[in-house]
Amino acid sequence: MGHFDRKFTKRGAPPGEFAPTTETIEPIVSVLSFDLDGLDETNVSSPAEAIDFAGKRAVTWIDVRGLGDGSIVREFGELLKLHPLAVSDVVNVGQRPKVDEYEGYAYSVLRMVTMLPGKDLQWEQISLFILPGLVLTFQETHQDCFEPLRDRIRRGRPMIRSSGADYLAMMVIDALVDGYFPVLEHYGDRIDQHEDRVLESDDQGTGMVRDLYGTKRNLAAFRRAAWPLREALGQLHRGNSPIVTRDARLHLRDTLDHIMQLVEVNESYRELTTSLVDLHLSIVGQKTNDVMRVLTVVSTIFIPLTFIAGVYGMNFDQSHPWNLPELRSPYGYAGFIAVCTVIAGMLLLLFRRLGWLGGER
Amino acid sequence: MGHFDRKFTKRGAPPGEFAPTTETIEPIVSVLSFDLDGLDETNVSSPAEAIDFAGKRAVTWIDVRGLGDGSIVREFGELLKLHPLAVSDVVNVGQRPKVDEYEGYAYSVLRMVTMLPGKDLQWEQISLFILPGLVLTFQETHQDCFEPLRDRIRRGRPMIRSSGADYLAMMVIDALVDGYFPVLEHYGDRIDQHEDRVLESDDQGTGMVRDLYGTKRNLAAFRRAAWPLREALGQLHRGNSPIVTRDARLHLRDTLDHIMQLVEVNESYRELTTSLVDLHLSIVGQKTNDVMRVLTVVSTIFIPLTFIAGVYGMNFDQSHPWNLPELRSPYGYAGFIAVCTVIAGMLLLLFRRLGWLGGER
Amino acid sequence: MGHFDRKFTKRGAPPGEFAPTTETIEPIVSVLSFDLDGLDETNVSSPAEAIDFAGKRAVTWIDVRGLGDGSIVREFGELLKLHPLAVSDVVNVGQRPKVDEYEGYAYSVLRMVTMLPGKDLQWEQISLFILPGLVLTFQETHQDCFEPLRDRIRRGRPMIRSSGADYLAMMVIDALVDGYFPVLEHYGDRIDQHEDRVLESDDQGTGMVRDLYGTKRNLAAFRRAAWPLREALGQLHRGNSPIVTRDARLHLRDTLDHIMQLVEVNESYRELTTSLVDLHLSIVGQKTNDVMRVLTVVSTIFIPLTFIAGVYGMNFDQSHPWNLPELRSPYGYAGFIAVCTVIAGMLLLLFRRLGWLGGER
Amino acid sequence: MGHFDRKFTKRGAPPGEFAPTTETIEPIVSVLSFDLDGLDETNVSSPAEAIDFAGKRAVTWIDVRGLGDGSIVREFGELLKLHPLAVSDVVNVGQRPKVDEYEGYAYSVLRMVTMLPGKDLQWEQISLFILPGLVLTFQETHQDCFEPLRDRIRRGRPMIRSSGADYLAMMVIDALVDGYFPVLEHYGDRIDQHEDRVLESDDQGTGMVRDLYGTKRNLAAFRRAAWPLREALGQLHRGNSPIVTRDARLHLRDTLDHIMQLVEVNESYRELTTSLVDLHLSIVGQKTNDVMRVLTVVSTIFIPLTFIAGVYGMNFDQSHPWNLPELRSPYGYAGFIAVCTVIAGMLLLLFRRLGWLGGER
Amino acid sequence: MGHFDRKFTKRGAPPGEFAPTTETIEPIVSVLSFDLDGLDETNVSSPAEAIDFAGKRAVTWIDVRGLGDGSIVREFGELLKLHPLAVSDVVNVGQRPKVDEYEGYAYSVLRMVTMLPGKDLQWEQISLFILPGLVLTFQETHQDCFEPLRDRIRRGRPMIRSSGADYLAMMVIDALVDGYFPVLEHYGDRIDQHEDRVLESDDQGTGMVRDLYGTKRNLAAFRRAAWPLREALGQLHRGNSPIVTRDARLHLRDTLDHIMQLVEVNESYRELTTSLVDLHLSIVGQKTNDVMRVLTVVSTIFIPLTFIAGVYGMNFDQSHPWNLPELRSPYGYAGFIAVCTVIAGMLLLLFRRLGWLGGER
Repeated sequence: MGHFDRKFTKRGAPPGEFAPTTETIEPIVSVLSFDLDGLDETNVSSPAEAIDFAGKRAVTWIDVRGLGDGSIVREFGELLKLHPLAVSDVVNVGQRPKVDEYEGYAYSVLRMVTMLPGKDLQWEQISLFILPGLVLTFQETHQDCFEPLRDRIRRGRPMIRSSGADYLAMMVIDALVDGYFPVLEHYGDRIDQHEDRVLESDDQGTGMVRDLYGTKRNLAAFRRAAWPLREALGQLHRGNSPIVTRDARLHLRDTLDHIMQLVEVNESYRELTTSLVDLHLSIVGQKTNDVMRVLTVVSTIFIPLTFIAGVYGMNFDQSHPWNLPELRSPYGYAGFIAVCTVIAGMLLLLFRRLGWLGGER
Repeated sequence: MGHFDRKFTKRGAPPGEFAPTTETIEPIVSVLSFDLDGLDETNVSSPAEAIDFAGKRAVTWIDVRGLGDGSIVREFGELLKLHPLAVSDVVNVGQRPKVDEYEGYAYSVLRMVTMLPGKDLQWEQISLFILPGLVLTFQETHQDCFEPLRDRIRRGRPMIRSSGADYLAMMVIDALVDGYFPVLEHYGDRIDQHEDRVLESDDQGTGMVRDLYGTKRNLAAFRRAAWPLREALGQLHRGNSPIVTRDARLHLRDTLDHIMQLVEVNESYRELTTSLVDLHLSIVGQKTNDVMRVLTVVSTIFIPLTFIAGVYGMNFDQSHPWNLPELRSPYGYAGFIAVCTVIAGMLLLLFRRLGWLGGER
Repeated sequence: MGHFDRKFTKRGAPPGEFAPTTETIEPIVSVLSFDLDGLDETNVSSPAEAIDFAGKRAVTWIDVRGLGDGSIVREFGELLKLHPLAVSDVVNVGQRPKVDEYEGYAYSVLRMVTMLPGKDLQWEQISLFILPGLVLTFQETHQDCFEPLRDRIRRGRPMIRSSGADYLAMMVIDALVDGYFPVLEHYGDRIDQHEDRVLESDDQGTGMVRDLYGTKRNLAAFRRAAWPLREALGQLHRGNSPIVTRDARLHLRDTLDHIMQLVEVNESYRELTTSLVDLHLSIVGQKTNDVMRVLTVVSTIFIPLTFIAGVYGMNFDQSHPWNLPELRSPYGYAGFIAVCTVIAGMLLLLFRRLGWLGGER
Repeated sequence: MGHFDRKFTKRGAPPGEFAPTTETIEPIVSVLSFDLDGLDETNVSSPAEAIDFAGKRAVTWIDVRGLGDGSIVREFGELLKLHPLAVSDVVNVGQRPKVDEYEGYAYSVLRMVTMLPGKDLQWEQISLFILPGLVLTFQETHQDCFEPLRDRIRRGRPMIRSSGADYLAMMVIDALVDGYFPVLEHYGDRIDQHEDRVLESDDQGTGMVRDLYGTKRNLAAFRRAAWPLREALGQLHRGNSPIVTRDARLHLRDTLDHIMQLVEVNESYRELTTSLVDLHLSIVGQKTNDVMRVLTVVSTIFIPLTFIAGVYGMNFDQSHPWNLPELRSPYGYAGFIAVCTVIAGMLLLLFRRLGWLGGER
Repeated sequence: MGHFDRKFTKRGAPPGEFAPTTETIEPIVSVLSFDLDGLDETNVSSPAEAIDFAGKRAVTWIDVRGLGDGSIVREFGELLKLHPLAVSDVVNVGQRPKVDEYEGYAYSVLRMVTMLPGKDLQWEQISLFILPGLVLTFQETHQDCFEPLRDRIRRGRPMIRSSGADYLAMMVIDALVDGYFPVLEHYGDRIDQHEDRVLESDDQGTGMVRDLYGTKRNLAAFRRAAWPLREALGQLHRGNSPIVTRDARLHLRDTLDHIMQLVEVNESYRELTTSLVDLHLSIVGQKTNDVMRVLTVVSTIFIPLTFIAGVYGMNFDQSHPWNLPELRSPYGYAGFIAVCTVIAGMLLLLFRRLGWLGGER
């Protein structure tokens, strides 16, 4: 099992200074430029080239996958006159999701989730700059969740094609949030399975409790990504930022609804997980009780009988009349059996009245 | 037992794109048009026909039950110039309850609950458009909870007949919220029954804990439906939306009170369920304790006695004077009985002083 | 034990429609009219008569105890032109405590509590209308908590006599809130008793846990009555309603302080109850531990000894020299006793070192 | 152990009516009057005398310790024209801490805590009136926490001497809040001690759990005093009351910081107490587990062996060749010992592999 | 193990009076003065000297490490005309983190954390004054976390050199907050280790629960430092204080993001710790259950068999035909073995069906 996601910024670096904390992954820069008339798409090798390419059509989306040693981020920062604080946040991955507005542009930190089978969730920081006519995104790795969105742009949907960069940015955020749904669904299925196993008392030692613990931990990480995003986008929606126009704002409201739903379902799952653990524990406790009852019934019946049998196995000298006269009686054994039967019967009656015989024997 | 309600939108589709997530249920379109002078009611086969029918009287209610392949929703959207985001939310069922205001109309997502005996609660998305003079509702299935409201309109109550579309919309929301009360009452009865069973110690293994878990889960789903509705309607009530007039606003306040009450009673039930589980567990724990005490009392008394009986059952050579001289005594057996009685009596006294004999034997 | 208070409105009826949910209790209408000069008091048989009587002095209080079939409420509603929504809330008892302002008057739903020995708390809906110069109250049953207030008015306190209807209404609310204090005190005493019993380990099986559960349930019902009232009155106090004048507002602040105190003490009691259950359970767990220790000490000492005694009770053929030679030794029994003593002694030493002998034996 | 502090007002009395709920403690009235030029101090016997004395210097502090039958409060109320609601709150002790502003003066209810060794905390209501040039305090008993403040005034600190009555009032509140710190420190020490005892497993039956319960209860009472005070003073600080001048406001902010700190530390202690109880319970549970393991290891090894010994103690007729032939073998006993050793060894190996032998034996 | 951090101010001293609560540590005063043109750095011996030195360049940072008997703080207070309340807060260490604005300057209390191996966290109060062109910091001990910041200033970064005192102050706060990250990381690693140990069932008695308790306590102390700081800086950021200019405000937002992240990760860790304790307890409970099952299976099988063996060890007089006729049968022993095998087999079958044999044997 992997470990808890603790990759937050270690800031030996001052705010606004440049100190990349990512692994060195070779950057791929792809540019997508479009307006109602057409669409140009290319991969470029330098920031300057990308920005040159950008001016030709109404809206351009520059997507950088992999940050290398971070120098590409710095170059973009210098060319587009981005604030050093924002530039340094791009490379100091592990930032809290947020939307920061600067004069003339906005900068947003988002978190993309990837679910690989048999592993903990993989979280990746996505940085998003919204400039006039330009959307600039940075991704930590080559892993990508924006291909469906690119396809839609290529297919030439008029709604996207005719809108501005802010609208495109909202679509980017929305695509990212869409990636959260299958994750929650996965955990929902998992909880369902555990539920069935608990309800069928298909007990597998402590394995289930551990699995539920893992689920809880991943749901907590999920919340840490979704909750601040909700806050940041809510602020953007309520605020009167000139960057986000009216039409993009309507879509932002829609995305916000989705995040709210994610947050609420996530909370539900967390509660359900806790309840399931409690349910499991109470069933285990009940079973311990049942086991104890069996032991007690059997012991309580046979321990006195064994004592009596032990008594008549004693070797007291039979020549003395007071020593174990029962042994010399012709009906001694019959009497012993009778006494044992009576004792066992009475104890069984008592246990039946106490309700200890129901179900488990 | 059914599964947890996890039918939230899987958005491979972009916001505002049309991607139905419902089953294909043949749509039934019923139109109810009325003013103070009269009432027309009919079933139509196409959106255009329904809207034609609508213009003749002051207020019209078009109710679509079943969404088919979603094309009927799209047609309504085009005819009434509804925003694509709203139209796509109608078919992407599983949305969070909300009220979205657009220019000239409002769109609300609501959740209808149906309780079928022996099953989990069935939740269905109801979409509600409030336009000038027109209320348009979409239901996922043919299941319907609006018949009593339609009856009241048919019976010609002046208050409904003389009011506008916004008033009708409030009545629709109110009818839907009314459907929540019997559900909560059902769970209230269930909790009462469990309470009686716990208090009568009518223990049935782990069945009750499982049932309480199911209740908890359904109450959590209930809250997920009621809580955002409260928020959305509260916003509509406080806001100065031109869509909701003063008289409808008074009724909205009333509906809000009902939702608040539902939310509070729901919270109470959730707490009660948790308390009941704890109470049950504590009674089970107490019983385990009682069982243990019986075992301990019986064992502690007889184990030493059995040892003594075992001692006098040993076969040491009696020809040696130091070997088990008690066996050769004429009062050996009497002495043995005396010793056993004294030991048992002392232990019983001790247990009485420890309070271990009270109640269970 | 009674059942949980679940009498909330079942609204098959539309909002504002008239559908009484109370039992039919014959209404008693008493009228109290006063100003600085004097006081008139009478019982009347019809709403019209009551309202006629009202005009003569500055302030009139019409109190209706028992709602009959609800027609009397409807008559008052028509005569005083009260909003149908408010009128229907009077007879649909089980409403959430609230204060609704209408034009020219205010309507408040309150909950009165009656504590009958050996029963759960009885909650009753009190409806209060504040009109200019007139206070109109409706009570569900003939049970009454306003007699001390009436007495004070009769005794002619100038502060009440010289103030308006709003001041009288505040006094009515205050009298009702005063009725909450003895209830909380009762539960405080009960918690004290349980505390003493837990601390004296005066364990009575599961009875106490059940009783604490009942207390918790009643405190939860209490909170559901007090919390919305706090909210509603707080809103009235902060708001700039023309209905409540400055002097009445000062008294409202005082009543609010009392409700806040009730709410806080109630919360404290709920926490204390939970802590007491935990304390009880931990003491029970500790006792189980003690019981187990006794069993283990006794068993662990005697089980090996019994085995040894059993060995020397075996009947192996003594003619073979290797079969149980100890039996033939003249010091066999003495050796047996020595070995048993050493084993028991060593185990006792071990148990003492483990701290298992302290206290319970 | 004393009882939970439940002395809240029992209001049979109407708001603003005079109904003392304190014990009759003879009032002592001390007056302290000062300005930059000098200081007069005296004890007086009547309110009128005190107020006469007040006019001579810039600021006067009248402190009444003990409320007698309450008539002295009423006299002050009449002479200074205080609102009847405030006057009645002085004698109806057990009010919630608050700050009420009236025209021209403010009234504050505060709670003083006294910690007597071996007892629960003693809470006392302090009433404080801030009038122009006059501070009037009422204390329930002769117990006093203001002596250090009086000393500072007597020593003639210019900052106090030159400031107004509002500044003096802030100093009074601050002196009272200062009295809370040693109490929290006491409980902090207590939690430390319990921590050490738990960590050293110095288990003393249920005594510690009880003591922690008492601590929890006292911390809850503490919170009920500190929390509303924080709220009330915060309101006074944020508000633009003309009664509190700018300089006094700075000191109020300081006092507020202290209360916030008290509240936070109190919360920490409450959490720690809960965690400690859990820690203790988990250690007890672990011990039960250890005890069980010892019992199981010993029983599981010896019970089968005892059975085998019992078998060879049976008296089947040896003349039949099939009856217990082992008894007639010359190596029967040796074989028996071998079998027992093998069984015991295998079980010990199994237990070692299960990890049941580590630590406790 | 050290004790809980309870060093809050004991205020026998009045607010604004001078009563140091620190240990006497000899003060070191270092001055750093810089503008774009250059940088002067020196250690001085008196406040006056430090302030003389300050005027020469645009921004000066006076850092006092160790407060001595507090007289140095008082001197600075007098020279810079700082408010007595702020000055006394510097020496009364243990204040709650806060930002207080005074006319012309701001005063902030912060908490620095030092993590020494094998000890609880060490918290130290840092006082920060922001004056025009001057930043004045007081540290309790010689321990220092500002050296990296000083280095950056010395290296002459233009962004720092060209900004004002407010910018420097933000950098100081940021450096301090940076010191929190390794602490959280340390606890994250610790939780990871515990997680591994729990998941590998590497049970070490109660040691882990104790360690988790210690972690919880330290995380709670951490929250008490971070939470008020978040609040105070948030207020500074939102407010329109003239002291913090636009550029410094951008950096403040960045620092705020870091604190938010710390607070959220801290909450996550607290939850994880609690979940881990629960997981551990549930695994321990499961093990107890397994142990009980082994005991019960072994006991329930052998106790009846031992009884039967005991029966045939009884010494009833064989001359009477009814006494133990089985003993005289030639197939008695074979029959005994058969009966025992059947009983044991049936019980094993029963236990297999109950699922008690899976896994642990």
